[in-house]
Amino acid sequence: MRFELLVTDRTTEARLGRLTTPHGMVDTPVFMPCGTQATVKTLDPRDLHEERCELILCNTYHLYLRPGHEVVKALGGLHRFMGWNRAVLTDSGGYQVLSLSALRNITEDGVTFQSHLDGSRHFLSPEKAIEIQFALGADILMALDECPPYSAEYAYHQASMERTVRWARRCRAAHPGEEPALFGIVQGGTYLDLRSRSAEATRQIGFSGYALGGLGVGEGPAQMYAVVGHTAALLPAKAPRYLMGVGTPQDLLEGIARGVDMFDCVLPTRNARNGGLFTSTGRLNIKAAAYTRDERPVDPACACYTCRHFSRAYLRHLYVSDEILGLRLNTIHNLHYYADLMRQARQAIEAGTFLAWKADCLARMLSDPSTSQHAQETHTDV
Amino acid sequence: MRFELLVTDRTTEARLGRLTTPHGMVDTPVFMPCGTQATVKTLDPRDLHEERCELILCNTYHLYLRPGHEVVKALGGLHRFMGWNRAVLTDSGGYQVLSLSALRNITEDGVTFQSHLDGSRHFLSPEKAIEIQFALGADILMALDECPPYSAEYAYHQASMERTVRWARRCRAAHPGEEPALFGIVQGGTYLDLRSRSAEATRQIGFSGYALGGLGVGEGPAQMYAVVGHTAALLPAKAPRYLMGVGTPQDLLEGIARGVDMFDCVLPTRNARNGGLFTSTGRLNIKAAAYTRDERPVDPACACYTCRHFSRAYLRHLYVSDEILGLRLNTIHNLHYYADLMRQARQAIEAGTFLAWKADCLARMLSDPSTSQHAQETHTDV
Repeated sequence: MRFELLVTDRTTEARLGRLTTPHGMVDTPVFMPCGTQATVKTLDPRDLHEERCELILCNTYHLYLRPGHEVVKALGGLHRFMGWNRAVLTDSGGYQVLSLSALRNITEDGVTFQSHLDGSRHFLSPEKAIEIQFALGADILMALDECPPYSAEYAYHQASMERTVRWARRCRAAHPGEEPALFGIVQGGTYLDLRSRSAEATRQIGFSGYALGGLGVGEGPAQMYAVVGHTAALLPAKAPRYLMGVGTPQDLLEGIARGVDMFDCVLPTRNARNGGLFTSTGRLNIKAAAYTRDERPVDPACACYTCRHFSRAYLRHLYVSDEILGLRLNTIHNLHYYADLMRQARQAIEAGTFLAWKADCLARMLSDPSTSQHAQETHTDV
Repeated sequence: MRFELLVTDRTTEARLGRLTTPHGMVDTPVFMPCGTQATVKTLDPRDLHEERCELILCNTYHLYLRPGHEVVKALGGLHRFMGWNRAVLTDSGGYQVLSLSALRNITEDGVTFQSHLDGSRHFLSPEKAIEIQFALGADILMALDECPPYSAEYAYHQASMERTVRWARRCRAAHPGEEPALFGIVQGGTYLDLRSRSAEATRQIGFSGYALGGLGVGEGPAQMYAVVGHTAALLPAKAPRYLMGVGTPQDLLEGIARGVDMFDCVLPTRNARNGGLFTSTGRLNIKAAAYTRDERPVDPACACYTCRHFSRAYLRHLYVSDEILGLRLNTIHNLHYYADLMRQARQAIEAGTFLAWKADCLARMLSDPSTSQHAQETHTDV
């Protein structure tokens, strides 16, 4: 994997870049839709191509449990399995092991956990996380980390961050090569000193890219932006930076302004399935009776398949009638919104107008108070 | 609406025809996918176009209750509402009123019933059925009929059939014009004398097409085919004949051989959502563990999007993981199978090889005993 830094903004830390992966190029800043179980929920690869999606995220925890990484490997790897010929990033499984599974037990060696599907017992170590991701055949792998709860105390954050660094070293040792790319993850909660130490230690190990983990877990936007700004500045300029599991459109713009290149979040896809739709002027919930006879598209400014062909009234009808098509049309719209926001951001960085564009964009989207909600659990699309 | 009879088979009653509707031409014999609530479940109009679908069925009962025919009318009619620019046939609502609603009461005037959604009380008369279908804006409307249960006695079938004839007369009086087309429905259960009287009386009233109702409700294939053969022969050769709510691939071929031009059934779409897939050599259930590592497409002989891009292993994974994409990919496959079967039938009729083709086709599909199942309730895709 290669990362070219094409433009760095003069008034913010925003960057325009390009990842070259074995499965095509990815323009950054980029938003990665979540393909948890080897499918971006409700969509097929054609839908993703139509939204010019270049990179998706799949969840190692889910695919390890079902259908199993050995099965995926036997079937030619994730790309072939799911009919997707563009890039795939897999997470390490660490986040889901800690948030979804039962009876987890963390030791220096790794994590013992029980499957949320059938209660079976499993062990995930740094080496195992690499082995699974190799079998899945992703273009970008993530080192195993621990993402402590927001409520954890300083001492826990410190110990956990230090263990995450040791795990990162073991991941690097298990996969010292360059292909596929391996990213390290910076932890440390909201403690800037811990973030500094984590960033420095992770950087010392040396990875193709660096992620900011443990954010968007309850700390609130202001504190998150402060941690992101502090941490991103400590990471190598020439490597891509990935803010994991974040976030709202506002979060993405603030992340970009602080030097983040990559994002993933379940918000656009999960909200879509709950009837929550993003528009350039705020969010709307398609369930509302107000849309019963509304002939307008979700967002008159949007060029997605859904907005080009269907009214709010039809989408509302599908939603209240429990029709699966509604979930898919909503998902297409929300992912288009996120992709288009990133496209606009890239154009603005290139044109040198990022700061003004961002202010204008936020003013429009914050004109509806419901757009400023901060999502809590946004890391797994289940 | 115009119906041209292009070829009549020499050894069977099979016919090749063409309907010309305000929304395009429809080659017959044709299978109409069920778009119960103004969507063929899980599919969008592009999917239907890709399967070269020319005509779908929507359910008056469901659309009357939700979102309401007046809402659909205000939004420009069904075609515009659902973004579908090809032909639509609506049923009369009669079948669903009797099978789905609570506390129904049939009188000479019409049917009083309670909504299965909210218990609200409604009245459906022949005139109201026409009014609702007009508001929905279908290309082909159906007269209101009663479809008695298979278990009903002769006397009930006789009285019901006679009332259906009187209702057909009232429907014709409520809509004496030619556009949109109005079809009458022949009832009479499995009693050939009642079918004869019903066919003659309905024919006397005069419709653009004639449907065979009350079949596929428990009588079994042999008896159904006998009734279809008997009844179709009594209907005008120059009008299309529609066998309602039927059926399996075998039923379609036997229906065509007896002179039927149009079919609808929930079997391909509902089975798809239950993991049941049709293939040229029999049915398979994608849930089976045997497919866990099966790299083959559902049907190597099939050219649908699903079979061109995905393995049985992937479809099984989606199904057991409750992924919505699986339901859609299965539906695409099954509708392609039905559409392709009709395409092959039309080609065989044109080539004068229908009988041999049908025998060959049935031999192949009956090589798997599971393909000979007869569906019970196949009229409403809910």
